[in-house]
Amino acid sequence: VIAPPRSGSLVVTIDTIVEGVDFDLASTRAASVGHKALACNLSDIAAMGCRPVAATISVAAPPRVTQEVLRRVFRGMSRLADRFGVDLVGGDYSASPRDFVISVALYGETAGLRPLRRSGARVGDAILVTGALGGSILGRHLRFTPRVEEGLLLNRHYRIRSMIDVSDGLSIDLHRLSRASGVGAVIDADRIPISGAARRLARTTGRTALEHALGDGEDFELLFTAAPREAERIVGDGRLRVPVSIIGRVTRRGCLLRDDAGRERPLAPAGWEHELRAD
Amino acid sequence: VIAPPRSGSLVVTIDTIVEGVDFDLASTRAASVGHKALACNLSDIAAMGCRPVAATISVAAPPRVTQEVLRRVFRGMSRLADRFGVDLVGGDYSASPRDFVISVALYGETAGLRPLRRSGARVGDAILVTGALGGSILGRHLRFTPRVEEGLLLNRHYRIRSMIDVSDGLSIDLHRLSRASGVGAVIDADRIPISGAARRLARTTGRTALEHALGDGEDFELLFTAAPREAERIVGDGRLRVPVSIIGRVTRRGCLLRDDAGRERPLAPAGWEHELRAD
Repeated sequence: VIAPPRSGSLVVTIDTIVEGVDFDLASTRAASVGHKALACNLSDIAAMGCRPVAATISVAAPPRVTQEVLRRVFRGMSRLADRFGVDLVGGDYSASPRDFVISVALYGETAGLRPLRRSGARVGDAILVTGALGGSILGRHLRFTPRVEEGLLLNRHYRIRSMIDVSDGLSIDLHRLSRASGVGAVIDADRIPISGAARRLARTTGRTALEHALGDGEDFELLFTAAPREAERIVGDGRLRVPVSIIGRVTRRGCLLRDDAGRERPLAPAGWEHELRAD
Repeated sequence: VIAPPRSGSLVVTIDTIVEGVDFDLASTRAASVGHKALACNLSDIAAMGCRPVAATISVAAPPRVTQEVLRRVFRGMSRLADRFGVDLVGGDYSASPRDFVISVALYGETAGLRPLRRSGARVGDAILVTGALGGSILGRHLRFTPRVEEGLLLNRHYRIRSMIDVSDGLSIDLHRLSRASGVGAVIDADRIPISGAARRLARTTGRTALEHALGDGEDFELLFTAAPREAERIVGDGRLRVPVSIIGRVTRRGCLLRDDAGRERPLAPAGWEHELRAD
């Protein structure tokens, strides 16, 4: 039983992480697995500009996952929950034959604000992103801080038109935002914030750091749009504890990448894709 | 984004079903799998005497599970949701290496009522159960109707002191209710409603029909307590579309089974147990 929202509506999300897909228990601290399971849900609520409140957890674990491992998973989850004032209110444990699967359902409240959606972008909006992108696989995907405070701050103080979190890759999540809003986008290659990890990764993969920033995913940064003048104010806001970059502009149709020379080419929706294509 | 409860608090639950543990795709219609995934959550909300409102679904599926199978799973879930006025508001799809795992998180509202808990049983209460128990594995575990209407009716019209749903077996769930309430229980063997399926099963398993009724689990009936006079009124309530039986009485301590001859023996908490023992 949880208290109803103090004001406004309720937001809900669910996300699952699976061993062998989202983490590897052999090479990952169990506490980090718990952190990630909750953090990717917190990122979803952050991208709505809402406040997370309570979570329920469901674990399906095979016999090889010991109680001690599960305790550590819970500890990682619990630490992150405390940090954001989220109550872990209940859950369910089930045996599984082989795979280790953790589902978290997270409830939030709109906190007197309008929940942000993917669908509000308007032609002429600036496109912004928090933090730096790419190379998350080198470690950040297990340790990232979900942008809960930033999402709330942006929603409270600015007219954010649309927002999504970068979970599967900048290019694919930009496509999603564009499709949901019925618009297009042009982003500038030289304005995309490329992480140090993306540059390090590029040395060994044969792909460019830009490609990693566009397609790696699991950045869990916020990708959003606002009117150009609003965007300038956001970039200059000292209260935001993470850098924000203007990377492009909303257009009528098509998702394009503009290179240093000003040439535009279609932006392929590259990135991690395990969505079910319904048709 | 979902509307907040019209009155009172919010109740939340999460439950997961796993292929090879809770269902077998080779011998089960996919729609029944979807039905079960949602129905066991509805049963949890029913046991709180609350009204289910909205659900989020998370699926982790290996490559062998086709889109057509997933569509049928969803259809089974969707049909049941419609029947109880539940919105399927969102979800998440993830690839898994080998196991097929479905998690459903369900949100409900207290509907102006007090949510029922396992912890309110008082010494002297009658112990009641809906329906008939045992042998669910012969088919009912995939087809059962969660006792949502009964839970609401009981909570609205009677002083129900404590309630739980029989998910893992009458004896184990009675132990849980007793432990949560800090009381004991005596149930009468000859008053336990034994299903036809339990009797059929007993012909081949070498166990008695009573043993099946006590330990099989997945009955998803309501097990609850009320003052004796209240219990008599409930049994006679023509609005309940399922039979209700008084099977015993709440005592100070210990869970006992009384046989036909009046002899009492300890009731072992037999049943399906895949709870994590925390210590």
